[in-house]
Amino acid sequence: MLTSTREILIHWGDCDPAGIVYYPRYFEWFDVSTHQLFLKAGFPTNELAERFGIMGYAMVDTRARFILPSKFGDRVTIETVITEFRHSSFDVHHKLMANGQLAAEGFETRVWTAHDGPRLKSRPIPDEVKRRFLGS
Amino acid sequence: MLTSTREILIHWGDCDPAGIVYYPRYFEWFDVSTHQLFLKAGFPTNELAERFGIMGYAMVDTRARFILPSKFGDRVTIETVITEFRHSSFDVHHKLMANGQLAAEGFETRVWTAHDGPRLKSRPIPDEVKRRFLGS
Amino acid sequence: MLTSTREILIHWGDCDPAGIVYYPRYFEWFDVSTHQLFLKAGFPTNELAERFGIMGYAMVDTRARFILPSKFGDRVTIETVITEFRHSSFDVHHKLMANGQLAAEGFETRVWTAHDGPRLKSRPIPDEVKRRFLGS
Amino acid sequence: MLTSTREILIHWGDCDPAGIVYYPRYFEWFDVSTHQLFLKAGFPTNELAERFGIMGYAMVDTRARFILPSKFGDRVTIETVITEFRHSSFDVHHKLMANGQLAAEGFETRVWTAHDGPRLKSRPIPDEVKRRFLGS
Repeated sequence: MLTSTREILIHWGDCDPAGIVYYPRYFEWFDVSTHQLFLKAGFPTNELAERFGIMGYAMVDTRARFILPSKFGDRVTIETVITEFRHSSFDVHHKLMANGQLAAEGFETRVWTAHDGPRLKSRPIPDEVKRRFLGS
Repeated sequence: MLTSTREILIHWGDCDPAGIVYYPRYFEWFDVSTHQLFLKAGFPTNELAERFGIMGYAMVDTRARFILPSKFGDRVTIETVITEFRHSSFDVHHKLMANGQLAAEGFETRVWTAHDGPRLKSRPIPDEVKRRFLGS
Repeated sequence: MLTSTREILIHWGDCDPAGIVYYPRYFEWFDVSTHQLFLKAGFPTNELAERFGIMGYAMVDTRARFILPSKFGDRVTIETVITEFRHSSFDVHHKLMANGQLAAEGFETRVWTAHDGPRLKSRPIPDEVKRRFLGS
Repeated sequence: MLTSTREILIHWGDCDPAGIVYYPRYFEWFDVSTHQLFLKAGFPTNELAERFGIMGYAMVDTRARFILPSKFGDRVTIETVITEFRHSSFDVHHKLMANGQLAAEGFETRVWTAHDGPRLKSRPIPDEVKRRFLGS
Protein backbone atom coordinates (compact mmCIF):
# COMPACT_ATOMS: atom_id res chain seq x y z
CA MET A 1 0.00 0.00 0.00
CA LEU A 2 1.07 3.56 -0.63
CA THR A 3 2.54 5.09 2.52
CA SER A 4 3.17 8.70 3.41
CA THR A 5 5.73 9.72 6.04
CA ARG A 6 6.31 13.19 7.35
CA GLU A 7 8.33 14.71 10.18
CA ILE A 8 6.89 17.10 12.71
CA LEU A 9 8.87 19.43 14.97
CA ILE A 10 6.79 19.94 18.08
CA HIS A 11 6.19 23.60 18.78
CA TRP A 12 5.68 25.56 21.98
CA GLY A 13 2.02 26.22 21.17
CA ASP A 14 1.35 22.50 20.64
CA CYS A 15 2.05 21.79 24.31
CA ASP A 16 0.01 22.22 27.47
CA PRO A 17 0.96 23.27 31.01
CA ALA A 18 2.26 19.73 31.66
CA GLY A 19 4.81 20.47 28.94
CA ILE A 20 3.53 17.73 26.63
CA VAL A 21 1.51 17.78 23.43
CA TYR A 22 -2.12 18.76 24.03
CA TYR A 23 -3.79 15.65 22.61
CA PRO A 24 -6.33 17.24 20.20
CA ARG A 25 -3.27 18.41 18.24
CA TYR A 26 -2.54 14.79 17.31
CA PHE A 27 -5.87 14.64 15.50
CA GLU A 28 -4.97 17.78 13.53
CA TRP A 29 -1.65 16.21 12.57
CA PHE A 30 -3.25 12.92 11.58
CA ASP A 31 -5.76 14.83 9.43
CA VAL A 32 -2.94 16.64 7.65
CA SER A 33 -1.19 13.30 7.12
CA THR A 34 -4.26 11.82 5.45
CA HIS A 35 -4.42 14.84 3.12
CA GLN A 36 -0.68 14.42 2.38
CA LEU A 37 -1.23 10.75 1.53
CA PHE A 38 -3.94 11.73 -0.96
CA LEU A 39 -1.63 14.39 -2.36
CA LYS A 40 1.11 11.78 -2.81
CA ALA A 41 -1.39 9.51 -4.57
CA GLY A 42 -2.12 12.29 -7.04
CA PHE A 43 -5.38 13.50 -5.53
CA PRO A 44 -4.92 16.89 -3.87
CA THR A 45 -7.98 17.52 -1.72
CA ASN A 46 -8.72 20.84 -3.38
CA GLU A 47 -9.19 19.06 -6.73
CA LEU A 48 -11.55 16.37 -5.45
CA ALA A 49 -14.66 18.47 -6.03
CA GLU A 50 -13.84 19.11 -9.65
CA ARG A 51 -12.53 15.64 -10.50
CA PHE A 52 -14.99 13.46 -8.62
CA GLY A 53 -17.92 15.70 -7.78
CA ILE A 54 -17.49 15.14 -4.07
CA MET A 55 -17.26 17.44 -1.07
CA GLY A 56 -14.44 15.39 0.45
CA TYR A 57 -13.79 12.34 2.62
CA ALA A 58 -15.71 13.13 5.80
CA MET A 59 -14.58 11.68 9.11
CA VAL A 60 -17.16 9.44 10.73
CA ASP A 61 -15.14 7.65 13.41
CA THR A 62 -11.66 8.27 14.77
CA ARG A 63 -9.64 6.98 17.67
CA ALA A 64 -6.16 7.52 19.04
CA ARG A 65 -4.00 5.76 21.60
CA PHE A 66 -1.30 7.75 23.40
CA ILE A 67 1.60 5.61 24.51
CA LEU A 68 4.52 7.96 25.15
CA PRO A 69 4.16 11.71 25.63
CA SER A 70 6.00 14.05 23.26
CA LYS A 71 7.24 17.45 24.34
CA PHE A 72 8.32 20.80 22.96
CA GLY A 73 11.35 20.50 20.69
CA ASP A 74 10.89 16.79 19.93
CA ARG A 75 10.97 15.62 16.35
CA VAL A 76 8.48 12.88 15.59
CA THR A 77 7.45 11.04 12.45
CA ILE A 78 3.96 10.09 11.27
CA GLU A 79 3.55 7.13 8.92
CA THR A 80 0.18 6.92 7.24
CA VAL A 81 -1.44 4.16 5.25
CA ILE A 82 -4.95 3.23 4.11
CA THR A 83 -5.64 -0.20 5.59
CA GLU A 84 -8.95 -0.97 3.90
CA PHE A 85 -11.21 0.31 1.16
CA ARG A 86 -14.92 -0.55 1.19
CA HIS A 87 -17.69 0.55 -1.21
CA SER A 88 -17.91 4.16 -0.02
CA SER A 89 -15.69 4.27 3.05
CA PHE A 90 -12.09 3.54 3.98
CA ASP A 91 -9.85 3.14 7.03
CA VAL A 92 -6.62 5.03 7.70
CA HIS A 93 -3.90 4.09 10.16
CA HIS A 94 -1.27 6.51 11.52
CA LYS A 95 1.79 5.57 13.53
CA LEU A 96 3.55 8.40 15.33
CA MET A 97 7.14 7.37 16.02
CA ALA A 98 9.53 9.08 18.42
CA ASN A 99 13.13 7.86 18.69
CA GLY A 100 12.18 4.64 16.95
CA GLN A 101 9.35 3.89 19.36
CA LEU A 102 5.61 3.94 18.76
CA ALA A 103 4.49 7.01 20.74
CA ALA A 104 0.91 7.32 19.48
CA GLU A 105 -1.41 5.69 17.02
CA GLY A 106 -4.42 6.98 15.11
CA PHE A 107 -7.32 5.25 13.40
CA GLU A 108 -9.83 6.84 11.05
CA THR A 109 -12.90 5.79 9.14
CA ARG A 110 -13.82 8.23 6.41
CA VAL A 111 -16.62 8.35 3.88
CA TRP A 112 -16.50 9.54 0.26
CA THR A 113 -19.09 12.31 0.61
CA ALA A 114 -21.01 14.50 -1.82
CA HIS A 115 -23.53 17.28 -1.39
CA ASP A 116 -27.09 16.14 -2.03
CA GLY A 117 -29.03 19.37 -2.00
CA PRO A 118 -28.61 20.78 1.51
CA ARG A 119 -27.57 17.39 2.91
CA LEU A 120 -24.54 15.14 2.58
CA LYS A 121 -24.54 11.60 1.26
CA SER A 122 -22.00 8.87 0.69
CA ARG A 123 -20.80 7.96 -2.79
CA PRO A 124 -18.95 4.93 -4.17
CA ILE A 125 -15.18 5.40 -4.17
CA PRO A 126 -13.95 5.26 -7.80
CA ASP A 127 -11.73 2.28 -8.69
CA GLU A 128 -9.24 4.78 -10.14
CA VAL A 129 -8.75 6.14 -6.65
CA LYS A 130 -8.47 2.76 -4.93
CA ARG A 131 -5.91 1.53 -7.45
CA ARG A 132 -3.53 4.41 -6.73
CA PHE A 133 -3.30 3.47 -3.05
CA LEU A 134 -3.02 -0.25 -3.62
CA GLY A 135 0.21 0.08 -5.60
CA SER A 136 3.44 0.22 -3.62
CA MET B 1 -22.05 52.57 21.60
CA LEU B 2 -23.40 49.06 21.89
CA THR B 3 -21.09 46.93 24.05
CA SER B 4 -20.84 43.18 24.38
CA THR B 5 -19.35 41.54 27.46
CA ARG B 6 -18.66 37.86 27.92
CA GLU B 7 -16.87 35.74 30.49
CA ILE B 8 -14.26 33.16 29.58
CA LEU B 9 -13.05 30.33 31.81
CA ILE B 10 -9.49 29.59 30.76
CA HIS B 11 -9.02 25.94 29.87
CA TRP B 12 -6.08 23.59 30.13
CA GLY B 13 -5.68 23.46 26.36
CA ASP B 14 -5.55 27.26 26.09
CA CYS B 15 -2.29 27.34 28.03
CA ASP B 16 1.30 26.67 27.05
CA PRO B 17 4.19 25.01 28.91
CA ALA B 18 4.75 28.25 30.85
CA GLY B 19 1.26 27.66 32.27
CA ILE B 20 -0.18 30.84 30.75
CA VAL B 21 -2.50 31.46 27.82
CA TYR B 22 -0.84 30.80 24.46
CA TYR B 23 -1.28 34.24 22.91
CA PRO B 24 -2.86 33.30 19.54
CA ARG B 25 -5.83 32.13 21.62
CA TYR B 26 -6.56 35.75 22.54
CA PHE B 27 -7.13 36.51 18.88
CA GLU B 28 -9.60 33.61 18.63
CA TRP B 29 -11.45 34.96 21.67
CA PHE B 30 -11.49 38.50 20.33
CA ASP B 31 -12.88 37.22 17.03
CA VAL B 32 -15.67 35.41 18.83
CA SER B 33 -16.40 38.58 20.81
CA THR B 34 -16.79 40.59 17.61
CA HIS B 35 -19.23 38.00 16.28
CA GLN B 36 -21.14 38.13 19.60
CA LEU B 37 -21.36 41.91 19.36
CA PHE B 38 -22.89 41.60 15.89
CA LEU B 39 -25.26 38.95 17.21
CA LYS B 40 -26.32 41.29 20.02
CA ALA B 41 -26.89 44.05 17.45
CA GLY B 42 -29.26 41.76 15.58
CA PHE B 43 -26.87 40.69 12.81
CA PRO B 44 -25.84 37.07 13.28
CA THR B 45 -22.86 36.46 11.01
CA ASN B 46 -24.51 33.50 9.30
CA GLU B 47 -27.30 35.80 8.05
CA LEU B 48 -25.03 38.52 6.64
CA ALA B 49 -24.76 36.87 3.23
CA GLU B 50 -28.50 36.69 2.75
CA ARG B 51 -29.36 40.08 4.24
CA PHE B 52 -26.57 42.22 2.85
CA GLY B 53 -25.04 40.18 0.04
CA ILE B 54 -21.62 40.16 1.70
CA MET B 55 -19.15 37.43 2.52
CA GLY B 56 -18.44 38.90 5.97
CA TYR B 57 -16.32 41.52 7.71
CA ALA B 58 -12.79 40.49 6.80
CA MET B 59 -9.92 41.29 9.14
CA VAL B 60 -7.29 43.52 7.55
CA ASP B 61 -5.27 44.68 10.55
CA THR B 62 -5.22 43.50 14.16
CA ARG B 63 -3.05 44.11 17.16
CA ALA B 64 -2.98 43.00 20.78
CA ARG B 65 -1.12 44.13 23.87
CA PHE B 66 -0.52 41.64 26.67
CA ILE B 67 -0.22 43.28 30.06
CA LEU B 68 -0.85 40.56 32.66
CA PRO B 69 -0.67 36.83 31.92
CA SER B 70 -3.75 34.68 32.56
CA LYS B 71 -3.52 31.04 33.53
CA PHE B 72 -5.53 27.85 33.62
CA GLY B 73 -8.64 28.16 35.80
CA ASP B 74 -8.80 31.97 35.66
CA ARG B 75 -12.07 33.65 34.77
CA VAL B 76 -11.65 36.71 32.59
CA THR B 77 -14.06 39.09 30.91
CA ILE B 78 -13.90 40.56 27.42
CA GLU B 79 -15.66 43.88 26.73
CA THR B 80 -16.08 44.69 23.06
CA VAL B 81 -17.12 47.87 21.31
CA ILE B 82 -16.91 49.31 17.81
CA THR B 83 -14.94 52.54 18.15
CA GLU B 84 -15.33 53.90 14.61
CA PHE B 85 -17.27 53.30 11.43
CA ARG B 86 -15.92 54.54 8.10
CA HIS B 87 -17.36 54.10 4.59
CA SER B 88 -16.54 50.41 4.21
CA SER B 89 -14.42 49.60 7.27
CA PHE B 90 -14.69 49.79 11.04
CA ASP B 91 -12.54 49.48 14.16
CA VAL B 92 -13.18 47.20 17.12
CA HIS B 93 -11.67 47.46 20.59
CA HIS B 94 -11.54 44.61 23.11
CA LYS B 95 -10.59 44.92 26.77
CA LEU B 96 -9.78 41.68 28.58
CA MET B 97 -10.23 42.21 32.30
CA ALA B 98 -8.96 39.92 35.06
CA ASN B 99 -9.78 40.71 38.69
CA GLY B 100 -10.74 44.23 37.73
CA GLN B 101 -7.46 44.90 35.95
CA LEU B 102 -6.78 45.32 32.25
CA ALA B 103 -4.88 42.14 31.36
CA ALA B 104 -4.91 42.39 27.56
CA GLU B 105 -6.26 44.61 24.86
CA GLY B 106 -7.18 43.94 21.24
CA PHE B 107 -7.63 46.21 18.25
CA GLU B 108 -9.17 45.25 14.91
CA THR B 109 -9.81 46.90 11.59
CA ARG B 110 -12.32 45.00 9.49
CA VAL B 111 -13.77 45.55 6.04
CA TRP B 112 -17.32 44.91 4.83
CA THR B 113 -16.42 42.41 2.11
CA ALA B 114 -18.27 40.82 -0.78
CA HIS B 115 -17.33 38.29 -3.43
CA ASP B 116 -16.62 39.88 -6.78
CA GLY B 117 -16.28 36.87 -9.10
CA PRO B 118 -13.27 34.96 -7.80
CA ARG B 119 -11.97 37.97 -5.88
CA LEU B 120 -13.05 39.90 -2.80
CA LYS B 121 -13.91 43.60 -2.70
CA SER B 122 -15.00 46.10 -0.08
CA ARG B 123 -18.57 47.36 0.08
CA PRO B 124 -20.17 50.36 1.82
CA ILE B 125 -21.49 49.50 5.28
CA PRO B 126 -25.28 50.05 5.31
CA ASP B 127 -26.54 52.87 7.54
CA GLU B 128 -28.99 50.38 9.04
CA VAL B 129 -26.02 48.46 10.40
CA LYS B 130 -24.15 51.50 11.70
CA ARG B 131 -27.23 52.80 13.50
CA ARG B 132 -27.65 49.63 15.51
CA PHE B 133 -24.20 49.97 17.03
CA LEU B 134 -24.45 53.69 17.69
CA GLY B 135 -27.43 53.28 20.02
CA SER B 136 -26.75 52.48 23.65
CA MET C 1 -23.63 9.22 38.33
CA LEU C 2 -22.77 12.90 38.42
CA THR C 3 -23.42 14.49 35.02
CA SER C 4 -22.22 17.77 33.59
CA THR C 5 -24.03 19.53 30.76
CA ARG C 6 -22.87 22.61 28.94
CA GLU C 7 -23.98 24.51 25.86
CA ILE C 8 -21.63 25.49 23.06
CA LEU C 9 -22.28 28.13 20.43
CA ILE C 10 -20.33 27.09 17.34
CA HIS C 11 -18.01 29.84 16.16
CA TRP C 12 -16.74 30.82 12.74
CA GLY C 13 -13.21 29.68 13.59
CA ASP C 14 -14.43 26.23 14.66
CA CYS C 15 -15.55 25.45 11.11
CA ASP C 16 -13.68 24.35 8.02
CA PRO C 17 -14.13 25.23 4.33
CA ALA C 18 -17.02 22.75 4.13
CA GLY C 19 -18.77 25.03 6.62
CA ILE C 20 -18.94 22.38 9.33
CA VAL C 21 -17.01 21.89 12.58
CA TYR C 22 -13.40 20.84 11.99
CA TYR C 23 -13.44 17.54 13.89
CA PRO C 24 -10.35 18.00 16.14
CA ARG C 25 -12.35 20.79 17.80
CA TYR C 26 -14.75 18.19 19.19
CA PHE C 27 -11.86 16.67 21.14
CA GLU C 28 -11.02 20.09 22.62
CA TRP C 29 -14.65 20.52 23.67
CA PHE C 30 -14.85 17.04 25.17
CA ASP C 31 -11.65 17.74 27.11
CA VAL C 32 -13.13 20.94 28.52
CA SER C 33 -16.29 19.03 29.45
CA THR C 34 -14.29 16.48 31.43
CA HIS C 35 -12.58 19.30 33.30
CA GLN C 36 -15.99 20.90 33.96
CA LEU C 37 -17.30 17.61 35.33
CA PHE C 38 -14.37 17.46 37.77
CA LEU C 39 -15.01 21.09 38.70
CA LYS C 40 -18.66 20.27 39.41
CA ALA C 41 -17.55 17.33 41.56
CA GLY C 42 -15.44 19.72 43.63
CA PHE C 43 -12.07 18.92 42.09
CA PRO C 44 -10.86 21.82 39.95
CA THR C 45 -7.98 20.53 37.86
CA ASN C 46 -5.63 23.26 39.03
CA GLU C 47 -5.96 21.97 42.62
CA LEU C 48 -5.30 18.30 41.83
CA ALA C 49 -1.54 18.63 42.23
CA GLU C 50 -1.80 20.12 45.70
CA ARG C 51 -4.62 17.92 46.97
CA PHE C 52 -3.64 14.56 45.53
CA GLY C 53 -0.02 14.91 44.49
CA ILE C 54 -0.82 14.11 40.87
CA MET C 55 0.02 15.78 37.56
CA GLY C 56 -3.51 15.20 36.23
CA TYR C 57 -5.65 12.59 34.51
CA ALA C 58 -3.73 11.87 31.33
CA MET C 59 -5.56 10.73 28.22
CA VAL C 60 -4.48 7.30 27.01
CA ASP C 61 -7.21 6.38 24.55
CA THR C 62 -9.99 8.44 22.98
CA ARG C 63 -12.49 7.95 20.22
CA ALA C 64 -15.28 9.94 18.65
CA ARG C 65 -18.13 9.12 16.31
CA PHE C 66 -19.54 11.89 14.13
CA ILE C 67 -23.18 11.33 13.23
CA LEU C 68 -24.56 14.71 12.15
CA PRO C 69 -22.42 17.68 11.15
CA SER C 70 -22.77 20.93 13.09
CA LYS C 71 -22.19 24.29 11.50
CA PHE C 72 -21.42 27.92 12.35
CA GLY C 73 -24.12 29.48 14.52
CA ASP C 74 -25.52 26.19 15.82
CA ARG C 75 -26.05 25.73 19.54
CA VAL C 76 -25.20 22.25 20.76
CA THR C 77 -25.11 20.61 24.18
CA ILE C 78 -22.50 18.24 25.59
CA GLU C 79 -23.54 15.83 28.35
CA THR C 80 -20.64 14.21 30.17
CA VAL C 81 -20.53 11.32 32.61
CA ILE C 82 -17.89 8.95 34.00
CA THR C 83 -19.05 5.47 33.05
CA GLU C 84 -16.50 3.40 34.95
CA PHE C 85 -13.80 3.76 37.57
CA ARG C 86 -11.02 1.20 37.81
CA HIS C 87 -7.99 1.10 40.13
CA SER C 88 -6.04 3.92 38.45
CA SER C 89 -8.03 4.67 35.30
CA PHE C 90 -11.54 5.72 34.35
CA ASP C 91 -13.80 6.06 31.31
CA VAL C 92 -15.69 9.15 30.25
CA HIS C 93 -18.61 9.35 27.84
CA HIS C 94 -19.73 12.53 26.06
CA LYS C 95 -22.95 12.97 24.09
CA LEU C 96 -23.14 16.01 21.83
CA MET C 97 -26.79 16.80 21.17
CA ALA C 98 -28.11 19.13 18.46
CA ASN C 99 -31.84 19.82 18.23
CA GLY C 100 -32.53 16.83 20.45
CA GLN C 101 -30.55 14.45 18.26
CA LEU C 102 -27.25 12.72 19.00
CA ALA C 103 -24.84 14.51 16.65
CA ALA C 104 -21.51 13.19 17.99
CA GLU C 105 -20.24 10.99 20.75
CA GLY C 106 -16.90 10.88 22.56
CA PHE C 107 -15.20 8.20 24.60
CA GLU C 108 -12.13 8.67 26.80
CA THR C 109 -9.92 6.50 28.95
CA ARG C 110 -7.82 8.53 31.34
CA VAL C 111 -5.22 7.59 33.94
CA TRP C 112 -4.61 9.19 37.34
CA THR C 113 -1.00 10.22 36.71
CA ALA C 114 1.86 11.49 38.86
CA HIS C 115 5.39 12.55 38.13
CA ASP C 116 7.95 9.90 39.07
CA GLY C 117 11.25 11.72 38.62
CA PRO C 118 11.43 12.60 34.92
CA ARG C 119 8.78 10.04 34.01
CA LEU C 120 5.06 9.66 34.54
CA LYS C 121 3.35 6.81 36.37
CA SER C 122 -0.20 5.81 37.23
CA ARG C 123 -1.55 6.13 40.77
CA PRO C 124 -4.59 4.64 42.49
CA ILE C 125 -7.65 6.91 42.28
CA PRO C 126 -8.66 7.92 45.84
CA ASP C 127 -12.02 6.59 47.06
CA GLU C 128 -12.89 10.15 48.05
CA VAL C 129 -12.76 11.08 44.37
CA LYS C 130 -14.74 8.08 43.15
CA ARG C 131 -17.49 8.66 45.70
CA ARG C 132 -18.15 12.19 44.51
CA PHE C 133 -18.94 10.99 41.00
CA LEU C 134 -21.03 8.04 42.08
CA GLY C 135 -23.58 10.23 43.86
CA SER C 136 -26.36 11.73 41.79
CA MET D 1 20.71 40.34 10.26
CA LEU D 2 20.12 36.63 10.54
CA THR D 3 16.99 35.62 8.62
CA SER D 4 14.92 32.48 8.80
CA THR D 5 12.68 31.36 5.95
CA ARG D 6 10.25 28.48 6.02
CA GLU D 7 7.55 27.19 3.72
CA ILE D 8 4.04 26.38 4.88
CA LEU D 9 1.51 24.25 3.05
CA ILE D 10 -1.91 25.52 4.04
CA HIS D 11 -4.08 22.76 5.43
CA TRP D 12 -7.81 22.16 5.41
CA GLY D 13 -8.07 22.78 9.15
CA ASP D 14 -6.29 26.14 8.86
CA CYS D 15 -9.16 27.54 6.81
CA ASP D 16 -12.58 28.87 7.74
CA PRO D 17 -15.97 28.61 6.03
CA ALA D 18 -14.94 31.39 3.62
CA GLY D 19 -12.25 28.95 2.42
CA ILE D 20 -9.38 31.18 3.53
CA VAL D 21 -6.93 30.99 6.43
CA TYR D 22 -8.58 31.74 9.78
CA TYR D 23 -6.42 34.69 10.84
CA PRO D 24 -5.39 33.59 14.37
CA ARG D 25 -3.47 30.82 12.60
CA TYR D 26 -1.09 33.42 11.19
CA PHE D 27 -0.08 34.32 14.73
CA GLU D 28 0.66 30.65 15.48
CA TRP D 29 2.81 30.47 12.35
CA PHE D 30 4.65 33.67 13.15
CA ASP D 31 5.33 32.35 16.66
CA VAL D 32 6.80 29.16 15.24
CA SER D 33 8.92 31.23 12.86
CA THR D 34 10.38 33.23 15.74
CA HIS D 35 11.28 29.99 17.50
CA GLN D 36 12.85 28.69 14.28
CA LEU D 37 14.92 31.86 13.98
CA PHE D 38 16.24 31.33 17.51
CA LEU D 39 16.94 27.69 16.67
CA LYS D 40 18.90 28.78 13.60
CA ALA D 41 20.87 31.24 15.76
CA GLY D 42 21.86 28.36 18.02
CA PHE D 43 19.38 29.03 20.81
CA PRO D 44 16.68 26.35 20.85
CA THR D 45 13.87 27.61 23.08
CA ASN D 46 13.92 24.52 25.27
CA GLU D 47 17.52 25.29 26.26
CA LEU D 48 16.94 28.95 27.18
CA ALA D 49 16.03 28.16 30.79
CA GLU D 50 19.21 26.22 31.40
CA ARG D 51 21.57 28.50 29.49
CA PHE D 52 20.25 31.92 30.45
CA GLY D 53 18.03 31.33 33.47
CA ILE D 54 14.98 32.73 31.70
CA MET D 55 11.45 31.50 31.20
CA GLY D 56 11.42 32.63 27.57
CA TYR D 57 10.79 35.68 25.39
CA ALA D 58 7.26 36.66 26.30
CA MET D 59 5.08 38.44 23.78
CA VAL D 60 3.95 41.88 24.91
CA ASP D 61 2.66 43.42 21.70
CA THR D 62 1.89 41.93 18.31
CA ARG D 63 0.20 43.10 15.16
CA ALA D 64 -0.55 41.66 11.75
CA ARG D 65 -1.72 43.10 8.45
CA PHE D 66 -3.57 40.86 6.02
CA ILE D 67 -3.15 41.92 2.42
CA LEU D 68 -4.06 38.91 0.28
CA PRO D 69 -6.03 35.91 1.54
CA SER D 70 -4.44 32.46 1.33
CA LYS D 71 -6.46 29.32 0.87
CA PHE D 72 -6.31 25.58 1.32
CA GLY D 73 -3.54 23.99 -0.75
CA ASP D 74 -1.52 27.19 -1.16
CA ARG D 75 2.18 27.16 -0.41
CA VAL D 76 3.41 30.30 1.29
CA THR D 77 6.75 31.39 2.71
CA ILE D 78 7.48 33.23 5.95
CA GLU D 79 10.66 35.29 6.21
CA THR D 80 11.56 36.31 9.74
CA VAL D 81 14.11 38.79 11.04
CA ILE D 82 14.78 40.63 14.30
CA THR D 83 14.66 44.32 13.43
CA GLU D 84 15.80 45.80 16.74
CA PHE D 85 17.31 44.78 20.05
CA ARG D 86 16.87 46.98 23.11
CA HIS D 87 18.05 46.40 26.69
CA SER D 88 15.53 43.67 27.56
CA SER D 89 13.17 43.61 24.59
CA PHE D 90 13.34 43.10 20.85
CA ASP D 91 11.21 43.44 17.73
CA VAL D 92 10.52 40.74 15.14
CA HIS D 93 9.21 41.21 11.62
CA HIS D 94 7.58 38.47 9.53
CA LYS D 95 6.77 38.68 5.84
CA LEU D 96 4.40 36.05 4.49
CA MET D 97 4.92 35.75 0.73
CA ALA D 98 2.57 34.01 -1.71
CA ASN D 99 3.53 33.75 -5.38
CA GLY D 100 6.16 36.43 -4.89
CA GLN D 101 3.70 38.90 -3.36
CA LEU D 102 3.47 40.13 0.22
CA ALA D 103 0.28 38.47 1.48
CA ALA D 104 0.55 39.22 5.20
CA GLU D 105 2.95 40.83 7.59
CA GLY D 106 3.55 40.32 11.31
CA PHE D 107 5.18 42.49 13.97
CA GLU D 108 6.16 41.36 17.46
CA THR D 109 7.67 42.95 20.53
CA ARG D 110 8.99 40.37 22.96
CA VAL D 111 10.66 40.64 26.35
CA TRP D 112 13.48 38.49 27.77
CA THR D 113 11.56 37.19 30.79
CA ALA D 114 12.50 35.31 33.95
CA HIS D 115 10.54 33.98 36.90
CA ASP D 116 10.85 36.19 39.97
CA GLY D 117 9.17 34.11 42.66
CA PRO D 118 5.55 33.75 41.54
CA ARG D 119 5.83 36.71 39.16
CA LEU D 120 7.60 37.41 35.88
CA LYS D 121 10.17 40.14 35.28
CA SER D 122 12.25 41.35 32.37
CA ARG D 123 15.96 40.66 32.17
CA PRO D 124 18.76 42.19 30.07
CA ILE D 125 19.33 40.31 26.81
CA PRO D 126 22.89 38.91 26.85
CA ASP D 127 25.30 40.39 24.28
CA GLU D 128 26.12 36.83 23.24
CA VAL D 129 22.55 36.46 22.06
CA LYS D 130 22.38 39.79 20.28
CA ARG D 131 25.65 39.14 18.41
CA ARG D 132 24.36 35.92 16.90
CA PHE D 133 21.46 37.70 15.23
CA LEU D 134 23.48 40.67 14.06
CA GLY D 135 25.75 38.52 11.91
CA SER D 136 24.58 37.74 8.41
